[in-house]
Amino acid sequence: MTEWMKLLSLTKPVIQAPMAGGLVTPVLAAAVSNEGALGSLASGYLSSDMLEKQIVDMQQLTDGAFQVNVFVPESRKEPDEGNIQTWKNRIPFAEQAPPFSSEEEEWEDFHKKISIILKHNVRACSFTFGIPPDETIQALKKNGCCLIGTATVPQEAIMLEERGMDIIVLQGSEAGGHRGSFLPVSGEAALGLMSLIPQAADAVSVPVIAAGGIADRRGVQAAHCLGAQGVQVGTPFLMCEQCEASETYKGELKRARGTDTRLTSLFSGKPARGIVNQWMKEQQAEEANALPYPLQNTLTKPMRKQAAREKDSGYMSLWAGQSVGMLNGTADVKSLLAELCRT
Amino acid sequence: MTEWMKLLSLTKPVIQAPMAGGLVTPVLAAAVSNEGALGSLASGYLSSDMLEKQIVDMQQLTDGAFQVNVFVPESRKEPDEGNIQTWKNRIPFAEQAPPFSSEEEEWEDFHKKISIILKHNVRACSFTFGIPPDETIQALKKNGCCLIGTATVPQEAIMLEERGMDIIVLQGSEAGGHRGSFLPVSGEAALGLMSLIPQAADAVSVPVIAAGGIADRRGVQAAHCLGAQGVQVGTPFLMCEQCEASETYKGELKRARGTDTRLTSLFSGKPARGIVNQWMKEQQAEEANALPYPLQNTLTKPMRKQAAREKDSGYMSLWAGQSVGMLNGTADVKSLLAELCRT
Repeated sequence: MTEWMKLLSLTKPVIQAPMAGGLVTPVLAAAVSNEGALGSLASGYLSSDMLEKQIVDMQQLTDGAFQVNVFVPESRKEPDEGNIQTWKNRIPFAEQAPPFSSEEEEWEDFHKKISIILKHNVRACSFTFGIPPDETIQALKKNGCCLIGTATVPQEAIMLEERGMDIIVLQGSEAGGHRGSFLPVSGEAALGLMSLIPQAADAVSVPVIAAGGIADRRGVQAAHCLGAQGVQVGTPFLMCEQCEASETYKGELKRARGTDTRLTSLFSGKPARGIVNQWMKEQQAEEANALPYPLQNTLTKPMRKQAAREKDSGYMSLWAGQSVGMLNGTADVKSLLAELCRT
Repeated sequence: MTEWMKLLSLTKPVIQAPMAGGLVTPVLAAAVSNEGALGSLASGYLSSDMLEKQIVDMQQLTDGAFQVNVFVPESRKEPDEGNIQTWKNRIPFAEQAPPFSSEEEEWEDFHKKISIILKHNVRACSFTFGIPPDETIQALKKNGCCLIGTATVPQEAIMLEERGMDIIVLQGSEAGGHRGSFLPVSGEAALGLMSLIPQAADAVSVPVIAAGGIADRRGVQAAHCLGAQGVQVGTPFLMCEQCEASETYKGELKRARGTDTRLTSLFSGKPARGIVNQWMKEQQAEEANALPYPLQNTLTKPMRKQAAREKDSGYMSLWAGQSVGMLNGTADVKSLLAELCRT
């Protein structure tokens, strides 16, 4: 057992990936924590009130450690009004989208969420899309909270360690969902775990965790050989009966092969890996012109909601990693974790 | 020791990647074979006379097994004359390029090379960019030649096994140089080894070999955990004193980090991973309009030659995998293989 596992009283070196957008509920995350792995709540698209409710529920469902993941707001460029109008015309139901949040509002939301995490003494907190401000880091550390950063290149890992992160999740090009990059990295330069883990492990002294394309014990053992002290697993948890992903989404996950995914910015404005569907095909030529995050995300929200209601996988975001071809059907958290940790 | 190693009398489960374009000489490949790994000659850009000379030299330098890699010609689409003219105007020194070879000429060259491989009883033959014709496969098998195919997705691996390949090299998105795909796979759908190896290993029963981003023992051991019976290593051999890569190229390899590479079709018309340089930056917007292989390759040949003469890395093809950030400086074949196989 390694130091980071002791710190969080874990018996399994596995983090359930914090998948935002209603995919993770306290039921799923608590099932993970109750097996001795690290369950994760995803605050990214939750209101702070909803986050607080989830934390309270979570603490009733498990005595184990869990983390809350928080998105770090980014500085915005001035949006191009003409391009916004173009996308408003192009995206179905965009007229029903809520107003864009300002950068100031995002920071306010960020700080509210941090206060809730502090108030409820959450054991671990992870960050995506950047490095939190120093006062946040100090406040959480003072509270005994374990800090987890997300890196996609060795340079990001070095920066996260310098700023005080206790653990670094290394997200390989194989990973489903949003890329957590905060330094510019193009899709075709995205590092596969086979290259990323040893290079990042050599560059930092804190424990590194491998994320991306890991679906069974083979990936866990390989990550260990490469220098990771644990793994973060996402897509395989989506197929668990404890996961609230829709049947439409689960059906696509079951059907898809590893080569059916690609990176796209068409849903949110930030590159994320998902199963190629109608929306991605229709707008492929406009990929490079997507609005910056979170504007594109705000405008596609009603389209995605409508698609979910109509069970139309063509216009939902079907986030999935390259291990999607290894999923055989419904699993449950206990058996998935047992497979991952089988020696 | 596994069956494929016994078949080729190897003591190390490592294949030196057949890197075309003058990078591999009999001196390098024989040094590999003499250490009990599989040395490889790359016939892709050699005349059949030159290939024969290299095989004869090789057989004088080693008693160990080696392979010859052969490119499988592809059926061409009718080229767009307007686009050819555009690139002739755009590519420096394109007016000095030799005439385009026809598909017929490429097949003639392919068959000549196979005859030479048969004549000299080469122990193994690998193929890139496709599946060779059945009569070629049968002739080589009759001669006791071990056949190695190259796959980038599980479906290609299945097809290669069905057509009689004895071993399949799985090329992950991390790999440097040309992608060996023969089914359509976009760059952002390219599978990392963490996902590719288990999915392909489950899909075929012949041994699979992992290629891409492997630079030290950690990668070799990880590949093994994922289900590979060996590894194919390219970029690290370029830094060996036995490698004929120019000092300019070696300097760029030493300097580059893993994130400095990307896939580009701007040199040859086929996606290949290399260190981003001036030519790739200048023409980035035209990436999607590159001429089909081998036309783009033919037109950039004088530019690359001139750049090599002038030691100008901006216009050379600087093929490199994502492990390039792990290279520390000049190595030699013996110490590199010892590191890869260290337990």
